[in-house]
Amino acid sequence: MINVGIIGYGYWGTNLVRNFFAAKNCCVKSVADFRPERLQQLERSFPSVKGVKHALEIIQDPEINAVVIATPVFTHFELAREAILAGKNVLLEKPMTSSVEEAEILIDLAEQKGVLLMVDHTYLYTGAVEKMKQLIDRSELGCIKYLDSTRINLGLFQSDINVLWDLAPHDLSILKYLVSEQPYSVNARGITHTENRIENIAYLTVNFQSGLIAHFNCSWSSPVKLRMMLIGGDKKMILFNDLEPTEKIKVYDTGYSYATDEEKKQVLVDYRTGDIHVPKVATSEALLNMAEDFISCIEQKNTPKSSSYLGLEVVRILEASTQSIRNHGKEVILEPSYAAALMHS
Amino acid sequence: MINVGIIGYGYWGTNLVRNFFAAKNCCVKSVADFRPERLQQLERSFPSVKGVKHALEIIQDPEINAVVIATPVFTHFELAREAILAGKNVLLEKPMTSSVEEAEILIDLAEQKGVLLMVDHTYLYTGAVEKMKQLIDRSELGCIKYLDSTRINLGLFQSDINVLWDLAPHDLSILKYLVSEQPYSVNARGITHTENRIENIAYLTVNFQSGLIAHFNCSWSSPVKLRMMLIGGDKKMILFNDLEPTEKIKVYDTGYSYATDEEKKQVLVDYRTGDIHVPKVATSEALLNMAEDFISCIEQKNTPKSSSYLGLEVVRILEASTQSIRNHGKEVILEPSYAAALMHS
Amino acid sequence: MINVGIIGYGYWGTNLVRNFFAAKNCCVKSVADFRPERLQQLERSFPSVKGVKHALEIIQDPEINAVVIATPVFTHFELAREAILAGKNVLLEKPMTSSVEEAEILIDLAEQKGVLLMVDHTYLYTGAVEKMKQLIDRSELGCIKYLDSTRINLGLFQSDINVLWDLAPHDLSILKYLVSEQPYSVNARGITHTENRIENIAYLTVNFQSGLIAHFNCSWSSPVKLRMMLIGGDKKMILFNDLEPTEKIKVYDTGYSYATDEEKKQVLVDYRTGDIHVPKVATSEALLNMAEDFISCIEQKNTPKSSSYLGLEVVRILEASTQSIRNHGKEVILEPSYAAALMHS
Amino acid sequence: MINVGIIGYGYWGTNLVRNFFAAKNCCVKSVADFRPERLQQLERSFPSVKGVKHALEIIQDPEINAVVIATPVFTHFELAREAILAGKNVLLEKPMTSSVEEAEILIDLAEQKGVLLMVDHTYLYTGAVEKMKQLIDRSELGCIKYLDSTRINLGLFQSDINVLWDLAPHDLSILKYLVSEQPYSVNARGITHTENRIENIAYLTVNFQSGLIAHFNCSWSSPVKLRMMLIGGDKKMILFNDLEPTEKIKVYDTGYSYATDEEKKQVLVDYRTGDIHVPKVATSEALLNMAEDFISCIEQKNTPKSSSYLGLEVVRILEASTQSIRNHGKEVILEPSYAAALMHS
Repeated sequence: MINVGIIGYGYWGTNLVRNFFAAKNCCVKSVADFRPERLQQLERSFPSVKGVKHALEIIQDPEINAVVIATPVFTHFELAREAILAGKNVLLEKPMTSSVEEAEILIDLAEQKGVLLMVDHTYLYTGAVEKMKQLIDRSELGCIKYLDSTRINLGLFQSDINVLWDLAPHDLSILKYLVSEQPYSVNARGITHTENRIENIAYLTVNFQSGLIAHFNCSWSSPVKLRMMLIGGDKKMILFNDLEPTEKIKVYDTGYSYATDEEKKQVLVDYRTGDIHVPKVATSEALLNMAEDFISCIEQKNTPKSSSYLGLEVVRILEASTQSIRNHGKEVILEPSYAAALMHS
Repeated sequence: MINVGIIGYGYWGTNLVRNFFAAKNCCVKSVADFRPERLQQLERSFPSVKGVKHALEIIQDPEINAVVIATPVFTHFELAREAILAGKNVLLEKPMTSSVEEAEILIDLAEQKGVLLMVDHTYLYTGAVEKMKQLIDRSELGCIKYLDSTRINLGLFQSDINVLWDLAPHDLSILKYLVSEQPYSVNARGITHTENRIENIAYLTVNFQSGLIAHFNCSWSSPVKLRMMLIGGDKKMILFNDLEPTEKIKVYDTGYSYATDEEKKQVLVDYRTGDIHVPKVATSEALLNMAEDFISCIEQKNTPKSSSYLGLEVVRILEASTQSIRNHGKEVILEPSYAAALMHS
Repeated sequence: MINVGIIGYGYWGTNLVRNFFAAKNCCVKSVADFRPERLQQLERSFPSVKGVKHALEIIQDPEINAVVIATPVFTHFELAREAILAGKNVLLEKPMTSSVEEAEILIDLAEQKGVLLMVDHTYLYTGAVEKMKQLIDRSELGCIKYLDSTRINLGLFQSDINVLWDLAPHDLSILKYLVSEQPYSVNARGITHTENRIENIAYLTVNFQSGLIAHFNCSWSSPVKLRMMLIGGDKKMILFNDLEPTEKIKVYDTGYSYATDEEKKQVLVDYRTGDIHVPKVATSEALLNMAEDFISCIEQKNTPKSSSYLGLEVVRILEASTQSIRNHGKEVILEPSYAAALMHS
Repeated sequence: MINVGIIGYGYWGTNLVRNFFAAKNCCVKSVADFRPERLQQLERSFPSVKGVKHALEIIQDPEINAVVIATPVFTHFELAREAILAGKNVLLEKPMTSSVEEAEILIDLAEQKGVLLMVDHTYLYTGAVEKMKQLIDRSELGCIKYLDSTRINLGLFQSDINVLWDLAPHDLSILKYLVSEQPYSVNARGITHTENRIENIAYLTVNFQSGLIAHFNCSWSSPVKLRMMLIGGDKKMILFNDLEPTEKIKVYDTGYSYATDEEKKQVLVDYRTGDIHVPKVATSEALLNMAEDFISCIEQKNTPKSSSYLGLEVVRILEASTQSIRNHGKEVILEPSYAAALMHS
């Protein structure tokens, strides 16, 4: 039985408490939030859970084995470091940290202390992403040529992170989960329509040396909500529309091949279009699956699906995207990383 | 009565002949195509039109007042120059030319010879674009903050131009028509999945000094067809979905304003969401409207909606996009242009 | 403060408890369910509420002012009668009773005892239905000519009531709420695909003497889920699609008028099609609005929106539909009713 | 080579001429229309075809082998009879005739004269219907339990036939083509909103003795256009949405089975929901396929897919639907027919 403490009882914190309640082999002991009205709400909904004001009351509680950190990103590093140093297993909300350096320090520290460090990239635990992973692993798509994601709506303007740090982690975690090739570089452009220099619309391209290209369109300023990802292989292609209640994944039996006509000096492209298949996907709650992966990986000393290595790689791309935006869209080469090498070894 | 000769009887040429037939005050005299089977097809469909093998037979025909050029882009400059020098009014298919330089030479030449030079940006003649123009001119959208266009499908891989030169002219002409501010710079990334180095997927960002951003997602390799443009103002926003049979334009009474909370050092953004309005748009055939604008501007010495200046500006952005792609997405500053200044004077 | 007791803690009972908890001026005292596992669930979720085994423990509790009955339809009459005789205000789930006779007896009894009797037709409390009511009351639709409803999906086959009694009450309550004219007759056909003679697909037409026609397509056996209603007036028409997350109501500025061409002995119909308007509708939870209407009508001795008279009229149509199905679709004339006359007086 | 004459050059006549032009082994010789402006239009579009004023000029032309009749329904019988008596093969537009009696007389006459009599139920020649036929013939759907069709839009109010005779033939021909069981009876209700007593909204139920039910919702008065058919088997179900540009047919791996729980006296229904499959369907023009079936069946003395027997069965249902509407929805038993027996022998 793992005793869990949760730091931060905002919108997502509520979901976390509910799901760790439902998860097997764990018990939610306490929740920390400095806002009294949030602790009152906690007491009404979960009278058995202790509400505390300070995060340290959780971090220093000897009965707690696992700390879940659901606070603003800029606080992740300090809180996670303290928790790891106190010997706790740690689950961080996405994005993992504010910088690659912070993420790498935490990973090293967790290895030294022999505790689990994990990041909550919830999407990886959805039936839809799991189905896409299966299709790709079974080589049904062939060689992946592109990934194109649109995640736009009228969103809350965050005051500490821009729209890419807010929305793209979902799609970047999917990219990292589905594609084993290391990205080579990024380009990004963004715009801010307020005075605080935090972009509310941004476009990110992730480039790979094989010719794969991944593109991310993120906006807090769209009157329509779209959650759409295209993944194109040379054998089949997938449309993942997360807003579809039942037909989330469509697999198009569509591909193209090409030949070079030496005489005409032309490349001839040949399309193949066939049936479309809409596989049934599991509908169990992703956040519960994530919570149970966290608990079970603590117990069995396993690496979770949404590992700290994957979390770091997401931060690496985000950090580079900020650098590219500051340089008017200039290409920023991603450094190869030891952790990344580990992840896919 | 304007006598029209059409050079090029491919897919689009057929539509041009049909619509110039239907247009007022003009007569389709002859069509040139070097492929005998195309001329046979012409004879079956339009027995009254003379089919000729060589473009010069049209350009040099003294009875012809207006020449329509519907051939591959790389031939536009030579054919148009010959026609203008022969004193003909000229309509060029989009994109106008292969380079800014070519476009500028043609514009100068047409002015010297006192003939009309026009580019067929058909979209400008649709009811949907006209309705958006009206809404913007009436200030219903407020200050325009972004334009975001997606034009993707399983498209024919062109052998002479990349996907941006093929598809983006539609959206760029709409951008130029709706927005009077001059674009400042572009960034573009693209990828080719064949051996001929012609990009089949590309992303283009057009940056403006006011904070407006325009983004164009173009692909020949998508299993789903999308023709979607979002235009966001601070008062209202538009979704233009060209694949909707009747509800092409949706106007969202949605906007955002912001205030700075000096105490908390935060920018507070306030959304307003209201009703949606789906205006009825004219359904007359855009290509016929374009043909009649051409004929009437010849007769009345007017500047057409889809002018050569606008066509030049589209080519200017495309040329810069190619330069940016060749430089791995680096920002390319657009030179201010005399013609552009004229267009909006 | 009204003390509420709820009989039946199934799927809908859970929603009722949650919403009466949230409603103003009331307190959920006890819940009755004969299934021990349901009472255990109740204790976990709402530790402050007393769970009891027998409905009578609620009906006879002197502290309880209002009884909510969320049990199978065949039990409604007995439970409601006991509760009314005990002087309680009563809220019945839809459909109100198994027969017109039962509903009329309950209405009389409630009047004699001076208590409120109400039926939970939740749809009447949605923003969408309220918006349609406003549009109709403001005469924006003109004279209403038809109502056409489709409510189909893969539904639980009920073992006591057929698909019309299960699904049509929603749409019939909307019909009765929006249209003041009394229906004249019904026709219905249905089919059962099991051995229990309970129809799983059925079609119902409600006829009016003015020429208005209303049609209801109900199925538990459709692989796609549809919740769609068209309401056609001679000035405007409405499409109500309850599955649309934000655009639930579309108002079409479409109408038709006709003239008789005496010479040609023809009726000439003239269409008018204009813009479409998508009004924003309130998104507050309908069930909470219903609960608060119940509490407030008890306190202020008012008639609720979803009155027992309206509930009776819904049962009247359902009873006639069963009679028509048993007679192979034969028209069944609806008796005029005193209660109905009252409702619209 | 079959020489074809076409009577009636209205909207559909134009399509017929164009497609018989494109069809193999035939030649369009002449077209009859009493309206001079239509004949002028014919000359402009098809200068090689002779335009004549009177139908008899075609019927009595010894060079013509096949007569296509595309005139209002009330004229079908007289024109077809004359043509058959003159020894011509005849193609009638749908619906075949105004009554079962007329259709039966024509069938007998054509057999006596040894000529082909065929009805243009174009839908049977679409890729979508052909795909559904294959799926059903391969028993993929299992036992067919229901067919539910919605065909509504803002339609031209016809002055001679009601909305069922206008729109339902499409769906009834599909029903007859896909389902071999003879229908047992019909119920129909309709309403007219003009003064000419011709229904503009109508609902038709076709009942079968096996428990299959088919329902048809037809309207000229809907602001939205729907062309949707559900076909439910106990193994799989189909959604046919004719307005979808590419995904016309969706096959749901969804079914239900039931068991009787003797103890609880309940029927327990068990659902199975699985993947969805969207087969690619042929996109060749249906009308051309129909024209070529007509020509080839004349040449080879075959029975066409859209035979006169099928056309008669459609008229039989329509005639019964009118009788049911006149009797306020009363069930009308369909007489078994000799021709119907032949069709499926």
